[in-house]
Amino acid sequence: MLANFTVTEEQRRAIPVIGDPEPDVLLRLDLFYAAVGVAIEERSGLLISRTLEISDEGIGRVLFTTRRLVVLSKTLRDAHRFGFNTLGKCAKTGTKLVKDAIKSIEAYPDVARA
Amino acid sequence: MLANFTVTEEQRRAIPVIGDPEPDVLLRLDLFYAAVGVAIEERSGLLISRTLEISDEGIGRVLFTTRRLVVLSKTLRDAHRFGFNTLGKCAKTGTKLVKDAIKSIEAYPDVARA
Repeated sequence: MLANFTVTEEQRRAIPVIGDPEPDVLLRLDLFYAAVGVAIEERSGLLISRTLEISDEGIGRVLFTTRRLVVLSKTLRDAHRFGFNTLGKCAKTGTKLVKDAIKSIEAYPDVARA
Repeated sequence: MLANFTVTEEQRRAIPVIGDPEPDVLLRLDLFYAAVGVAIEERSGLLISRTLEISDEGIGRVLFTTRRLVVLSKTLRDAHRFGFNTLGKCAKTGTKLVKDAIKSIEAYPDVARA
């Protein structure tokens, strides 16, 4: 299961970027950002909404909001090729996103509870 | 063109809500909210990002953000049946959304420019 999150450079280069992203890649991308959302909720104690928009070209945006605050906004490119070289990289990326989100909640505590 | 935005009660009832929403309905929904976004930009002078997420069941969310502020958030239900009884209703709904957005920008001017 976790092994599915790792994609080597060679595997990545082999994925065509024209056409709809593969459903299993989108599922992994969705799961990754769902996990980020849950971690932000646990750390902040706030209810986080997530909105994910991806075009057929693999370009999109994932937004985490709570009340009036944009907690985290991430532009997605190459959704076709979503994955991490190693699981360590996956964990590190997730942790950084959660930290950034917590920072913005701490910067605008009243907006996050508006 | 504009006539496409009106859907009578009878027409609405005739649309099945199971299965993917029709592409032309989604295009109209997209156009409507794009127009709302442009109007918010014109009124506020700020750059507005729009994220639209709709599931196959016609349920979703449209989010308008600028910097750290959620300017407008709208839950979508029955996207399959998107449309207004009259053009007047369409204009009124759009105007109300723009007003709500402007109000939240005025309430959190620093977050909208963070």
